Amino acid sequence: MKFGGTSVADVERMRRVAAFVKCEADAGHSVVVTVSAMAGETNRLVALCEEAGPPDPALDVRNVEYDAIVASGEQVSSGLVAMILQKMGYRARSWLGWQAPVRTDAAHGKARILEIPAEALGDSIDNGEIAVVAGFQGVAGDGRISTLGRGGSDTTAVAFAAALGAERCDIYTDVDGVYTTDPRISKQARKLDRVSYEEMLEMASLGAKVLQTRSVELAMAYKVPVRVLSSFEPPDAPRAGTLICDEDDIVEKHIVSAVTLSKDEAKISLMSVPDEPGRAAFIFGILADAGINIDMIVQSPSRQAGANISFTMAETELARAVEALTLRKDEIGYVQMQSDRNVVKVSVIGVGMRSHTGVASTMFKSLAEKNINIQNISTSEIKISVLIAADYGELAVRALHQSYGLDRADSAA
Amino acid sequence: MKFGGTSVADVERMRRVAAFVKCEADAGHSVVVTVSAMAGETNRLVALCEEAGPPDPALDVRNVEYDAIVASGEQVSSGLVAMILQKMGYRARSWLGWQAPVRTDAAHGKARILEIPAEALGDSIDNGEIAVVAGFQGVAGDGRISTLGRGGSDTTAVAFAAALGAERCDIYTDVDGVYTTDPRISKQARKLDRVSYEEMLEMASLGAKVLQTRSVELAMAYKVPVRVLSSFEPPDAPRAGTLICDEDDIVEKHIVSAVTLSKDEAKISLMSVPDEPGRAAFIFGILADAGINIDMIVQSPSRQAGANISFTMAETELARAVEALTLRKDEIGYVQMQSDRNVVKVSVIGVGMRSHTGVASTMFKSLAEKNINIQNISTSEIKISVLIAADYGELAVRALHQSYGLDRADSAA
Repeated sequence: MKFGGTSVADVERMRRVAAFVKCEADAGHSVVVTVSAMAGETNRLVALCEEAGPPDPALDVRNVEYDAIVASGEQVSSGLVAMILQKMGYRARSWLGWQAPVRTDAAHGKARILEIPAEALGDSIDNGEIAVVAGFQGVAGDGRISTLGRGGSDTTAVAFAAALGAERCDIYTDVDGVYTTDPRISKQARKLDRVSYEEMLEMASLGAKVLQTRSVELAMAYKVPVRVLSSFEPPDAPRAGTLICDEDDIVEKHIVSAVTLSKDEAKISLMSVPDEPGRAAFIFGILADAGINIDMIVQSPSRQAGANISFTMAETELARAVEALTLRKDEIGYVQMQSDRNVVKVSVIGVGMRSHTGVASTMFKSLAEKNINIQNISTSEIKISVLIAADYGELAVRALHQSYGLDRADSAA
Repeated sequence: MKFGGTSVADVERMRRVAAFVKCEADAGHSVVVTVSAMAGETNRLVALCEEAGPPDPALDVRNVEYDAIVASGEQVSSGLVAMILQKMGYRARSWLGWQAPVRTDAAHGKARILEIPAEALGDSIDNGEIAVVAGFQGVAGDGRISTLGRGGSDTTAVAFAAALGAERCDIYTDVDGVYTTDPRISKQARKLDRVSYEEMLEMASLGAKVLQTRSVELAMAYKVPVRVLSSFEPPDAPRAGTLICDEDDIVEKHIVSAVTLSKDEAKISLMSVPDEPGRAAFIFGILADAGINIDMIVQSPSRQAGANISFTMAETELARAVEALTLRKDEIGYVQMQSDRNVVKVSVIGVGMRSHTGVASTMFKSLAEKNINIQNISTSEIKISVLIAADYGELAVRALHQSYGLDRADSAA
C-alpha cells in the first residue's frame, strides 16, 4: 500500500492512512506500507538546498548531500505512521532505504534501484509486523543515501512488491483510478477498470501524471499487478480503482484505451540543411551530446535547397538545444532555425492497435473535421501521437475521445 | 568544532559556521564539525511525535520510531553545512550516526555511545575532507537509529574528538565561556580561563547549562581538552573562551571556582519514622524502584517519636515520589509527609577544597550574615551544596560569590 504526500500531510490524515492499513491487516493480509514525505516537506527541504548552494553541474558531490537532506522527509512520515499503528495496537516498524536495504546505483537525485535483499524485512513481516517503508530513498554502493527522483515513492512501492512477491501493489492517490482522458479536459472521461502495463507506460510518458514511469516499467518487468485507488473514500468502503496488469488479463480489450495531452513540448525546425547522407545523424549527435531527448522527427524537401528537418523535445530543454545548434551552425549548414513553444502533443493509446487497422485514419479524419493541422507524427506499436498548435489541444482531445467511442455510455449524444 | 541549534538556525547562520570552519581549515587543521538540528526543528519533530502517540511506558518500541524521526533534524543541518563548505571550494561531506558509525546501546531516546570505529571517517579526513557530523544520533546494535538525549550533540563532538585523538574539542555556543556564576544573577560574574573536568562536571550537574553532563564525563575519561567559545563573535577574531582541562594543567588554582544555583529542586520530609536499623534503606529502596533520583538526605530525631527524614529530588519527580510513598505509608510507618517545591540548591565548587580547610565555615558564615536558613547540606570532595528557601537563592549566590573572592577584580567595592 503506497500513500502519497497529500495522504500523509498531517498526523490527522496519517490516522486515516492507518485506518486503511488496519482494514487490510484485519482481513489477514501481510502489509508493507510505503509513504511519501508530508505534503510540502520535500519542497521545503529542496528550498533549503537551493539556498545553501544553487546547483553547480561541476560539483556532482553536491547531489549526495541533497539526497541525505531531502530523504529526511520520508524518514519522518514513515516513523510517524509506524507510531500511529503501534498506538492502535499493531506491531509495526519503519524501514529506511539503508535499513531494508534498497540498493541503488550512484546516480544521486535520480538513482535506480538495483536490488532489495529483503530478508530482514521478510522475516519481520512473517513475524506479524507491519512494515512502514520510507519511499523515494535508497542507499548507494558507498553507503550514502540516494533518492529516486520526484514521484519515486511509487517505484519504491512496486519494487518492494516485486522483491517480496506481493499479490498486489495498491497505490493510493488523490484520484480514484486511471481515466480514458483527463476529466478536466473532457467531462466524458471514463475510469478504466483495467489497463495494460504497456498502455500505462505510454500514458505515464505522455503526460498522465498518475504514476512515475519507472514504477510502471518495474511492475511490467516483474508482473506486479498495480491498483490505483483513491485515499479520499472511507477506509472501509468497497474499493475499485484501476488495475494495471498484463494484457492477457484484460478480457474486454479496447482498440484505443486513452487519449492524452502533453503540453511540455517544443519544436525546432532547421531550414535548408544540405541533403546528404549522415547529416541527420550529425545533428542528432550534437543534441545527444548536450543531453537533450529528441522525440518526433520530420524531414521534408525544402522549397529553396536541401531539406527542412524539424523535431520536438521537452519545453524545458529548448533553450539548451537552440544554444547547441547555434554554436555549430556552420558545421551543420542550415540557413535558418525556427523554434516554437506553442505546440502540444496529442496521443491515442491502445493495445488493440496491434490487431486493428484504421486507427490512424480515424485520428487524421477527426482532426481534419475540426480543421486542426498536424505538424509532426510519431507512432509506436500501441500509440499514435501528433503535434498540433497549442490552442487546439483540448479540442483535439475531446474530438478523438468521441471518435474512438470512449465517451461515457450513459451520456446521450 | 561543535555548533548548537541557534548557530545553525538558518542557512545564513550556517554560512557563519562555515566561516569559522574555514579559519581552522585554512590554518592547516583537520576539522570535524558537529552540528545540532536547526533551532526549533527538534521541538517541531517532538511535537509531531506527541501528536502521533502520547508516550506510553508499556510501548518501549515507540522510542525507536521517536529516535528515527527526531534524528532527521541533524541529518538536514549536517547536509546543508557540508553543501555550503563545498560551495566555498572545500571538500566536505556529512556523516550520519549510522554511517560513521556511532555505536550506542539500545536505550533509545537516551542512548550512550559504546564506540566509534572511525576508520572510514579517519581516512576521509586524512584525504583532506572536512567531516560534518550529525550530532545527537547513533545506531543501536539492531541497526535502528538511536539518539543521545537533549544536548547530546556536545557528547557527539567530544566522542569524535576522543575517537580521532583530536588536539581539542571546541564547543561553540551562545555564551563566550564558563562563568564563576550566572551573569544574570551577579553582574560581578567573571569568565574562567580554565576549569577542571571535575569542577565542570559538578557545575553541569548543578544547573550550569553550558554542556551536557555526559560530554564532560567523556572528556574527562579520554582527557580531551574542551574549549567553550561564542559563535557570535567574528569568525576571524582571536578567541579565548574557557578551556576545560585536567586539573594539573591549571596553574592558578582557585579554592572555589564557581557558585551555582539549581532551581529544579523539591523536598520531602517524613515525620516520626520508627527509628530502627534498615528503615532508611527500605524507604530509599521504594524510591529507587520508582526510578527517582534522591539527592540531599538529612535524618534527625523527632520531637514526638522516632526520626524525621528529609531528602530532595528534581522537582519534576516530586509527584511520583509522593505517590510511591503514600502507597506504602503503613509499611514505612511515618506519621506525616510534607513536601516543598519552594526550595533551591546553592553550591560552591572548587578543586582547591581538597587542600584547603575553612571553605564550609566561610559558606555558613556568609549565609548566616544574610539571615538565610540552611535546610539540608551535602558535600563532595570538591563541592558543598546547601538547600535553602527559593526566595533567597539569588541573594545567597551573590553573597557567596563575594565571600570567596570571585567578584571582578576591576570592580571597586
